[in-house]
Formats: sequence, structure tokens, C-alpha cells
Amino acid sequence: MATIQDVAKHAKVGVGTVSRVLSGKGYVKEETRQKIEASIEALNYTPNAMARNLFFHRSGIVAVIVPEVGHPFFSQFVNAAEKALCEQGFQTMICNTYYKKNYERRYLDMLKQQRVDGIIFAAHTALDISQYENIGRPIVALDRNLGEKIPCVSVDHETGGRMAAEEMIYSGCRNVVQFRGPKKGEVSTPSDRRHDVFEDIMRKHGIACQTYSLKWHSTDVSYYQNTADELLEANPGIDGVFATDTTIMAVMQSALSRGIRIPEQLKLVAYDGTFEARLVFPRITMIKQPVEQLAGEAVQLMSHLIHEEPVRNHKVILQAELCPGDTTVRR
Amino acid sequence: MATIQDVAKHAKVGVGTVSRVLSGKGYVKEETRQKIEASIEALNYTPNAMARNLFFHRSGIVAVIVPEVGHPFFSQFVNAAEKALCEQGFQTMICNTYYKKNYERRYLDMLKQQRVDGIIFAAHTALDISQYENIGRPIVALDRNLGEKIPCVSVDHETGGRMAAEEMIYSGCRNVVQFRGPKKGEVSTPSDRRHDVFEDIMRKHGIACQTYSLKWHSTDVSYYQNTADELLEANPGIDGVFATDTTIMAVMQSALSRGIRIPEQLKLVAYDGTFEARLVFPRITMIKQPVEQLAGEAVQLMSHLIHEEPVRNHKVILQAELCPGDTTVRR
Repeated sequence: MATIQDVAKHAKVGVGTVSRVLSGKGYVKEETRQKIEASIEALNYTPNAMARNLFFHRSGIVAVIVPEVGHPFFSQFVNAAEKALCEQGFQTMICNTYYKKNYERRYLDMLKQQRVDGIIFAAHTALDISQYENIGRPIVALDRNLGEKIPCVSVDHETGGRMAAEEMIYSGCRNVVQFRGPKKGEVSTPSDRRHDVFEDIMRKHGIACQTYSLKWHSTDVSYYQNTADELLEANPGIDGVFATDTTIMAVMQSALSRGIRIPEQLKLVAYDGTFEARLVFPRITMIKQPVEQLAGEAVQLMSHLIHEEPVRNHKVILQAELCPGDTTVRR
Repeated sequence: MATIQDVAKHAKVGVGTVSRVLSGKGYVKEETRQKIEASIEALNYTPNAMARNLFFHRSGIVAVIVPEVGHPFFSQFVNAAEKALCEQGFQTMICNTYYKKNYERRYLDMLKQQRVDGIIFAAHTALDISQYENIGRPIVALDRNLGEKIPCVSVDHETGGRMAAEEMIYSGCRNVVQFRGPKKGEVSTPSDRRHDVFEDIMRKHGIACQTYSLKWHSTDVSYYQNTADELLEANPGIDGVFATDTTIMAVMQSALSRGIRIPEQLKLVAYDGTFEARLVFPRITMIKQPVEQLAGEAVQLMSHLIHEEPVRNHKVILQAELCPGDTTVRR
């Protein structure tokens, strides 16, 4: 396989000149450029990812920032992102923010210092949007509105919320509860929409609907178990719960251990469709986020930004999928 | 806060000299060294992690290599490792190997090229041990025997296997199956012991015991479901299963959907104790690996190796914990 040295020798120029042509940065005489391009073609030279990063003063590293990679949804997002980044020649750095602003700031500093080439931002706490917008380096958001300049990938949460609502209606619910994520920071997330839509539709159908906020997506088993226990103790009359996988699993565990029958007495709809949540009995009715595609789109956008290619679509919206299970009434 | 420039100015030397004292590398006159150390004390100077890395020609990055970070056990290990590495001033790179040797080789190359300061190796396929031993750069293994030179952190799998066996005996099992991980590569893992011990104890108690090998710890839901369905169809007579969390969850789902009563007809013992597996009903009897401590010990060893400090204990063995649930008979 031809190296950059081979190209330089063939074109009778220095390696530095070839590198300037490859990077498109720095002055090269038009005649020399043509000679080098001819040599690149003649030798069928493809710069490898690491060599290319050296020329471009890149680290070859993209940071994926999540609240906590131990959480099932984020672990599966990171998994898919690592795969897609690897295929594009990037290494993956992971950063847990634990919903703390100082961690977020630290990672933005890494981006400013060019220690990473870009950040895929999937965490939830938020500094002021301007801190992101003004960096002028590659950032792609998952499920976050970080201003017009920063591309965002998300699912169509409005349809997701509607599908969950329709499952509750079809199953005959009269008194439901939904759990939403922590409300922190000033930045909105597209996923807020699913809760607004769900509540709206419930109200329109005369179904009582309470909305609870979870503290945060930690991986603290007892937090979820206590939340579920408190819910069922405080609300003996509820007949439907809509929440992400982990909360639904905890509610199911608590309900079944109290002898509550599912779906006869309690209907459950889970949002996310993560791995282990699909391995429980009864099988949970789910609104599945296409996590591989979300990661793939985010990485594609990141790759365009890093290579300074035009980004046509700043808001990529994918469809969530209803996977009917046995925790609602089958149609 | 004092910077290295302040120290240099205070000691009336160049920044390079201070850097040589901090790194302990390169010649510095004893008199100068003492002057610099006095200035460091006088100014209460602490080099920050990034500055220190620059002096030491380090990347400040540790790679954590796993089969797939989407798998619950590895996501929780990576989560804990990232936390511990962050506390020590390191960034975390993650690398999925998907059990492929060429990926493994790529990451070892990164270590050789000093693009990362060290590798915490938690994957399973294996090149020849010599490829690890002869690198001469920081490597710490999780649950892998990579030769005498490379420290290894694991749980006491022998006791883990014994605890599982005792649960089966106490619960009156006569015909059990255990699932072990994929058998690939030439390198042994300490976790093999739990399966050997489990089988031995079953045999000694006259309990029939079959050992199946899983293909690999992927996050393919239908692989686990099919494995569970095939198990129960081919072995209507089994009354106990020992496997890691994910397989146990799939077996439980398959068994309950066939109307098999747990624990009356089928006893289950899960190994790992990951997050979501603790959120199912009936609560699973588990042998829990102390994943935070495993990661903490691995990072501590890594930190010693990177800072060229002596490592006293090359085999760190922690205890797994029996968490009794309702899938075996309660004592």
C-alpha cells in the first residue's frame, strides 16, 4: 500500500507539501498541486485515518457525553456510537456528567483545547445555550435543543407520546400516571413533547393523568424500587403507568409482588425499548427508540462537521416504533 | 492558584527545569532541585492533571476494552471505571472488540504508539499472551490471565460457583444446567473456575449437570430468547439453571410464559447482579459481583503502573456476594 512518502517521492516534492494538499490548508502552487494529485491517483493512495489526523491536527477522538453510561439507554447509545465512530476512523471517549454542570464545562474545555475533535452531547443538565453555540467546534446533540447552529438528532417524541396514549385509551384506562425525566437547567429537550402530548390526549379523553418528575436516570436500584412502591401505595386507584423502561420494570416488580394483576388491573407502557427490559415476563408494551439509527445519524453529522462538509438537515427526526406486549390489552 | 510559570519565577529558573523536577526525568542540579521544591511548597503549587500529562508526554487517556459496552455487566464496569479514572485525572476511551482479534490488535497498537497511557482489558478473545506481556506498557486485566507481568483483578469465582451450587442443593434440584461464556482463544479466565467448581459439586451430590457454552455476550435479545426456548424444549426435566443475569432473565421469561412455576418447578441462580436484572419479579437469587470495587481496583493498579509506582499485589481477588431472592428456596 502506498504511503505519503511514496506520493512525495513520485511527485518529487516534500512530504509537507503532500500533507498541505491533503488537508487543503496552506499555500501550494497550482502546478505542484496537480502533480501531487496525479501521483495520488497513479499510486492509488488513500491516507489512513491516523495519518490523516496527524495532517489535520486532529486527535481522532470524539467524546460522547452522557449522564451515566451504566444506564441501559445510554449504554446502548454509546455502544452504537462507538461502532459507527470506529467505522469512520474515530476513537470514542466517554464522559459521564452525573447531571453536574462542572463536568459539562470540563468536557467543553477539552473541545476548545482540541483534545477531542467533536462532542456528541447526550447528557441533560445544561449550561446556558450560548456556551455551546459560541464554541465554533463540532457538536451534535442527542435529544437536546442547543440552538440553531447545533444539529440535533431525536425521535419523533410527539408520535411516541401519542402511541402511548392510544394504548392507554384502547386498554380502557381511567386513571394514569406518567413519569418524566428530571427538570433541570434551562435547555429544553424534544422528549418533553411526549409528556405534553400524552397528558393532552388523556385530558381530552377524560382520563385522569398525573405527571411525576424523576430525580434523575441514575442506576440506583433502590431509588426506582422506592419510587414504584410509593406510587402504588399513594395511588391505589391507578390503572396505567407510562415511563421509561427502568421505571416500568420497577413498577411491574412492585405491582406483581403486591398481587396486582397485569394487564387486568394495571396497564404499563414503557419508552425506550432497551435490551434487558425486553427479557421480562409479562412482555412489556414498548415504544422503542431506534437507538442504532440515532447513534448512526449523530455520528454521520459529526463526521460532516469535522470534515467541514455542509450539513443539510440540522434537525434529524426518526420514528419510534410501537412494540405491543402483554402489559396492555392486545388489539 | 499558582502555575508552573509562577514556580519557575519564584525559584528563578526556567519552566523546563521545573518540569524536569516534576517528572523526575532528566538531570537537575541538586541545589536547583531543592530551590524548586521550596518554591513549590511556598506557593502551594499542585500541577493539574493536564499540565502533568504534558510534562510526562502522556495522553491522559486510559482505554477500557470490553466485548461490547451495551452489555449490562460491561456497561456498569465501564461506568465505574470512568468514575474512578476521572477522579485520578484520566479520560476514558472505550473500545468494543466484538470478540474480534483484529480489533484487539488495533487497540494494542494504540498503546504501543502512546496514544493511550494504559489499557484496562476486560474483553475475552485473546491473541497469544506474549503479545500482551511484551508490550512493556501499562495493562491491567479484568478477569483474564495475561501472564505473570500483567496484574489481574477478579472476584473469587470459586466461592461464587460454590455459593450457586449450594443454592441448588438446598433448593432440592436433581437436574441442572449451567451456561458458560464463549470458549475462544487460548487465554484462560479466572471465571472458568466457577463453572468447574459448580459442576464438581453437583456431581459429588449426585445431581445431573449439563454445561452449555453461549456464543458470546452480545446484546441480541432474540439470541437469548431462542437459547432459553431451546433449553426448555429440549430439557423438560430440568429443575435448575445457573447463568449470568441476561441468560437467567431470558430463561425466566420463557419458563413463565410456558406456565412453569418458579421456584417450585424451576430454580434460577444468576451471576453478576447487574442493574436491571434486580428489577424483575420474582426477585432473582444472585451472586453479585462488586463491580464498582472491581473497577476501582483496576484503576488503582493502572494509576500505579502509569506513575511507575511499585505494584505489590498482581492478583487482586474480591468476594462475590450471595443475594437471596425468590427464584430459589429461601432458608
